[in-house]
Amino acid sequence: MEKVTLADAFASIDGRWDPHLAGELNGQAVKLAKAEGEFVWHRHENVDELFLVTDGRLRIEFRERDDAVLEAGELLVVPCGTEHRPVAEPEAHLLLFEPAGTRNTGDVESELTKEELKRVDG
Amino acid sequence: MEKVTLADAFASIDGRWDPHLAGELNGQAVKLAKAEGEFVWHRHENVDELFLVTDGRLRIEFRERDDAVLEAGELLVVPCGTEHRPVAEPEAHLLLFEPAGTRNTGDVESELTKEELKRVDG
Repeated sequence: MEKVTLADAFASIDGRWDPHLAGELNGQAVKLAKAEGEFVWHRHENVDELFLVTDGRLRIEFRERDDAVLEAGELLVVPCGTEHRPVAEPEAHLLLFEPAGTRNTGDVESELTKEELKRVDG
Repeated sequence: MEKVTLADAFASIDGRWDPHLAGELNGQAVKLAKAEGEFVWHRHENVDELFLVTDGRLRIEFRERDDAVLEAGELLVVPCGTEHRPVAEPEAHLLLFEPAGTRNTGDVESELTKEELKRVDG
């Protein structure tokens, strides 16, 4: 049972769109990721996904509704099955909460797909 | 699908130790609470609980290990079955992740027990 200091954890992350595991509880995972520019369009068929922006700005684009723009200190739950594309403007630090084992690119196989999660330092 | 601005949501909460629902996903709840002073000793028998401090400082006391002290931007997962007592020093804003329906005082019935959650504005 070790606390995680978000600033230290983000400082230990080099890559972009490379979620790192910050904690697990009740079958869910808390992940941290640095975001920059455009991610890929994808959906998670059976998984709702929470985005909390801790630094920067993230726009989440949707096919069938207006974009959501999240500043630092704002969160949004994207319901399962909802196609979405996160776009960091220009960079953002993200805390994600979703079931353990959720693939970052959902139903899409991409060069951004990360099958294995590293654990954060911090 | 509405975003939650933490600052606005906390501004809408009057009580202390009165968790408000900020979102639900995958059977889990995101709750926000203002904390001040001592909570009650309790445990959640089958529920891990995440504390993220967004403002102020929270000390979490344990019976069988050293206290954890969380500043703003720090998080800790308290494993199920672990007796703990949160103490805000002197105040803190908390974001909690835990299964929907988790009672705030766990196995303990107290004047601080909240059986029904309000939903945040924000």
